[in-house]
Amino acid sequence: MQIAMIGLGRMGANMVRRLLRAGHECHVYDVSAEAVAGLVAEGARGAGSVEELVGGLEAPRTVWLMLPAAITGDSVTGLLGLLDPGDAIVDGGNSSYRDDIDRAETAAAQGIDYVDCGTSGGVWGLERGYCLMIGGPDRAVSRIEPVFAALAPGVDAAPRTPGATGDPSPAEQGWLHCGPSGAGHFVKMVHNGIEYALMGAYAEGLNIIRNAGVGVRAAEVDAETAPLREPRYYPFDGIDLPAVAEVWRRGSVVGSWLLDLTAEALRSDPGLEQFAGRVSDSGEGRWTSIAAIEEGVSAPLLTAALYSRFASRGSELFADKVESAQRLGFGGHLEKSGS
Amino acid sequence: MQIAMIGLGRMGANMVRRLLRAGHECHVYDVSAEAVAGLVAEGARGAGSVEELVGGLEAPRTVWLMLPAAITGDSVTGLLGLLDPGDAIVDGGNSSYRDDIDRAETAAAQGIDYVDCGTSGGVWGLERGYCLMIGGPDRAVSRIEPVFAALAPGVDAAPRTPGATGDPSPAEQGWLHCGPSGAGHFVKMVHNGIEYALMGAYAEGLNIIRNAGVGVRAAEVDAETAPLREPRYYPFDGIDLPAVAEVWRRGSVVGSWLLDLTAEALRSDPGLEQFAGRVSDSGEGRWTSIAAIEEGVSAPLLTAALYSRFASRGSELFADKVESAQRLGFGGHLEKSGS
Amino acid sequence: MQIAMIGLGRMGANMVRRLLRAGHECHVYDVSAEAVAGLVAEGARGAGSVEELVGGLEAPRTVWLMLPAAITGDSVTGLLGLLDPGDAIVDGGNSSYRDDIDRAETAAAQGIDYVDCGTSGGVWGLERGYCLMIGGPDRAVSRIEPVFAALAPGVDAAPRTPGATGDPSPAEQGWLHCGPSGAGHFVKMVHNGIEYALMGAYAEGLNIIRNAGVGVRAAEVDAETAPLREPRYYPFDGIDLPAVAEVWRRGSVVGSWLLDLTAEALRSDPGLEQFAGRVSDSGEGRWTSIAAIEEGVSAPLLTAALYSRFASRGSELFADKVESAQRLGFGGHLEKSGS
Amino acid sequence: MQIAMIGLGRMGANMVRRLLRAGHECHVYDVSAEAVAGLVAEGARGAGSVEELVGGLEAPRTVWLMLPAAITGDSVTGLLGLLDPGDAIVDGGNSSYRDDIDRAETAAAQGIDYVDCGTSGGVWGLERGYCLMIGGPDRAVSRIEPVFAALAPGVDAAPRTPGATGDPSPAEQGWLHCGPSGAGHFVKMVHNGIEYALMGAYAEGLNIIRNAGVGVRAAEVDAETAPLREPRYYPFDGIDLPAVAEVWRRGSVVGSWLLDLTAEALRSDPGLEQFAGRVSDSGEGRWTSIAAIEEGVSAPLLTAALYSRFASRGSELFADKVESAQRLGFGGHLEKSGS
Repeated sequence: MQIAMIGLGRMGANMVRRLLRAGHECHVYDVSAEAVAGLVAEGARGAGSVEELVGGLEAPRTVWLMLPAAITGDSVTGLLGLLDPGDAIVDGGNSSYRDDIDRAETAAAQGIDYVDCGTSGGVWGLERGYCLMIGGPDRAVSRIEPVFAALAPGVDAAPRTPGATGDPSPAEQGWLHCGPSGAGHFVKMVHNGIEYALMGAYAEGLNIIRNAGVGVRAAEVDAETAPLREPRYYPFDGIDLPAVAEVWRRGSVVGSWLLDLTAEALRSDPGLEQFAGRVSDSGEGRWTSIAAIEEGVSAPLLTAALYSRFASRGSELFADKVESAQRLGFGGHLEKSGS
Repeated sequence: MQIAMIGLGRMGANMVRRLLRAGHECHVYDVSAEAVAGLVAEGARGAGSVEELVGGLEAPRTVWLMLPAAITGDSVTGLLGLLDPGDAIVDGGNSSYRDDIDRAETAAAQGIDYVDCGTSGGVWGLERGYCLMIGGPDRAVSRIEPVFAALAPGVDAAPRTPGATGDPSPAEQGWLHCGPSGAGHFVKMVHNGIEYALMGAYAEGLNIIRNAGVGVRAAEVDAETAPLREPRYYPFDGIDLPAVAEVWRRGSVVGSWLLDLTAEALRSDPGLEQFAGRVSDSGEGRWTSIAAIEEGVSAPLLTAALYSRFASRGSELFADKVESAQRLGFGGHLEKSGS
Repeated sequence: MQIAMIGLGRMGANMVRRLLRAGHECHVYDVSAEAVAGLVAEGARGAGSVEELVGGLEAPRTVWLMLPAAITGDSVTGLLGLLDPGDAIVDGGNSSYRDDIDRAETAAAQGIDYVDCGTSGGVWGLERGYCLMIGGPDRAVSRIEPVFAALAPGVDAAPRTPGATGDPSPAEQGWLHCGPSGAGHFVKMVHNGIEYALMGAYAEGLNIIRNAGVGVRAAEVDAETAPLREPRYYPFDGIDLPAVAEVWRRGSVVGSWLLDLTAEALRSDPGLEQFAGRVSDSGEGRWTSIAAIEEGVSAPLLTAALYSRFASRGSELFADKVESAQRLGFGGHLEKSGS
Repeated sequence: MQIAMIGLGRMGANMVRRLLRAGHECHVYDVSAEAVAGLVAEGARGAGSVEELVGGLEAPRTVWLMLPAAITGDSVTGLLGLLDPGDAIVDGGNSSYRDDIDRAETAAAQGIDYVDCGTSGGVWGLERGYCLMIGGPDRAVSRIEPVFAALAPGVDAAPRTPGATGDPSPAEQGWLHCGPSGAGHFVKMVHNGIEYALMGAYAEGLNIIRNAGVGVRAAEVDAETAPLREPRYYPFDGIDLPAVAEVWRRGSVVGSWLLDLTAEALRSDPGLEQFAGRVSDSGEGRWTSIAAIEEGVSAPLLTAALYSRFASRGSELFADKVESAQRLGFGGHLEKSGS
């Protein structure tokens, strides 16, 4: 089918490529003419402006946005001025589902369908396919189904769940209509919240193994530092972390795609020397914890994963200073330079 | 090669079967004569006592224990009275690595090798193979290598990590000599600590999705309860959780074997009505957090996962009562029966 | 000075009493005529409606609201229709500071000052005085200062901080103009977030002491449960918790007003049998954690305190079931009825 | 009564002074002859060696140790060679209660009483008195009672808890016989665990207030960073933190001695510029969390407080690098230098 893509960055460009391979007619636009030209060379139809892009489509139109969350709002507003009733906007980026709910109301008032599509897959999506979590009106989701099916990995990407029989459901193919507008980004948001915690789980565990030799390292003894009571139980200096990540990949309970990536990263750089350890977060993890709080649902792991990222960027510094000040106040304890 | 197995429960019996299939000579013993007879019928050689078992082996002997942690200690003590220098004991159960360190010292004083082998794979290991994390003297680990190789899944169980070339390493085959005695169970311990957190991550995320409709449910309004400020953002009642778990299995960043199992569980029982929500823990998760603390390493997710299990069994009840008492004390707040 | 109070519940009525004692002229209104009559008997001037209340005041008027957060918004809207430029509304309840920011904008457009006043003190405020955290325009805060000063505890309520000299600042008297509209409730919100964590800290600690005898209680031994490695270190059955709370009140680092209340509660009911352990939360703790998340600041304790309250009301049940289902899936583990 | 003190550091010396003031006969020893001489000048009787110290006492002797935990064990062993049946050793330092249990067994075999005394009060104890948490045999605790009573703050240090009447109990005077050997340090250990969390609660809350102006600071916009959805709700740049800590000291629910110290620290150095934010821990916080874990009791706040201290000293660095490596792996995300 015919589809327009606005935003040809890392994600958007690869999605166009995957759609082209499946035989879809892709009209593309980006602020970078170079990005447009690159995809035109691969078979897409380029446009020099959003107006030109929209003008080149047949009704009912489908315009897919693949933009940074900060820019999506203005882009939607612009599009709503160009589209007609029956057309559909798909936001495939990392918008807050709350913006979806607001924007869908505005769009619906014009008869335009607003579809939110949480998209997982990262730089690997071109080959692996994208996992799509979709919210919006049935009319639009049904019409765009061929595009979702082409982007999704397909049922063969994993063994069918025991008990699943007959024609594979959309969920088994890797895309799901989760509910009304916002439901797709909501499920994708929680997906990312989970992702943060999965990453943190491996990270913490590997760190514990990395420090399993504290019993054989020299430790200072003073009134400020408790001696390790039984150093004989921490003799494991130098356990081979890349090998540990590798051995867990086969037969263990913790096997996962994130573990595969971790093993690969450790293989090429066992000390991860190229990283400074400042971990970014792009919003979904925050929103997931906020949703847990507003729902009154406990989510200690997901929030701990988020807070570890904040802390990796120094957010706790002032709080730490308060504690050092308190220790000085009640006990005369001076800060130590060592650990 | 020849190997003896003591303990023919869920894990031990399947490991014997996998070894028999690989052509190894398995001598078996269990307090249950029935369990012994069952494996004899499948080709193992049975013994009516530990003494008989040991008597039937050629030196250097290899005796593998697959017993509950609480029983392993006494069993090792008994075995040390029966074995000769050069023999080896393998503890494949869920012992604390600290017990390994202690027992290995005792064994070494008799010239006996003590090997600890953390074993992951659960009820699936017979078919998938077992992921083995091994600690102990080189002499014994080298000698027993054929057994490890037969139990492990083998390199074909997962795609090779990019960059890995040549003959697959033991880690790539699914078994790893992690270090001296105790190192195997240490790595397995952390593996389980990670496992708890991975499980908790999915559990929390699915719970947040399950409660995404709080905005459309009736909520009480009083001085004790803050109104949800923007209920319009929680309209998603009834998102299909089995389908969500299913869609994440293909193409997403959170794909894993635990997710596969979660999808299967939700498919067969979407409300998980058969469970009361009392989550057991079998020790490794506790020991992992203790190791983090003794090493001075932060592990908020792993410990949160552990504490959630404790709380699921009511461990916080008195603490909660203290808070209710405090609220009554400073604010005159009475406990509410609703949530 | 002259001041009107709307909302004569637990907090509002006592605040009127404290103002009357200080010689202020208090006009009062509540939906309960009985509540109005009670305070009239103590010297306040009653009104039968908000209109009557406002009509009885001289300009510039000061109307203080002490209402549940859920009702405050409508009440403000109503008042804005009755007041004149130069008048002031004070919201002394537990509103979200976000509502203050929104309402202050609306009020300012009419020339009306909107003051938010976070009020701590609970049922003890009548005697101890109230700690007041205030946001809003300087004009109004200056004008209402006599009321703040009368409600606040005064400098004698605590020893002056070393280094503080000269005339006591408002903060030393127990009230503080924190910043523009919303700043008062923001600081009060964080105050309550801290309060939750302080309460949780004592609660957790007392619970650990309460369970210090696990080593002398019978424990089951099976493959699902790790034996306590060293039960000899948990022999302390029956430590006297009321006495522990009491002893900490003098000379220790953990002395606090909340500890005083805890000691009192334990003295009268050592097992806290009257409580079910369902801990309410009234909004500020949630908003504090949300603020931390939106600011990108790590707040693990404050959020853990909040989540413990959610969990005390059963919010984790489904998540726990997911974990039990996973354990059954990979290990064949059945849930246990014991702990 | 007659008592010997070994260890005349910050704590020990002040305790001797307080005992001297109460009229007790204090024999003192320290490796520093200067420290001994200082106290002799204040009325104590000095000794040049432990042997001389013990030799100068009448049976039944009482020797109080006030030493770093790392040194206490050897000192006890030495003392056991010098003392007679009926004598008592008091360990007033920060030993692990597990060491008490072990040492008490050894001492009891010689007929010597071993008393552990957790001591809170820090540098303020000389004036405020010390809160004492005591474990050990009744015989010794009864005999030493005059010393405990002299060190403790006394009942006047705080208002009596409502409902407490008659002669003040020891707990009301600030000392408590908690149970058998080890019980004193166990209760003190948990006291410190609580202390860590109280400190962390204030620290986190103040940090949230400090960052309440993120909405008015310039923020970058790119695909890696989610824009703050509603910056209008974070306008509070520059709230006066010293004043906030001060105002909370009177009438609020969060008043405490730690808050008093926090207010004092912020008054003298509002930005806490003199601190680097590396927060030490001296053992008890670790042991408290370990006790919670071994008891199977959830203690999320206490452990979060501990982990924040570890993280303040960089313990999470490698874990953070793992997460950055994973992000690069699945999404091509490069680390950012900003926050």
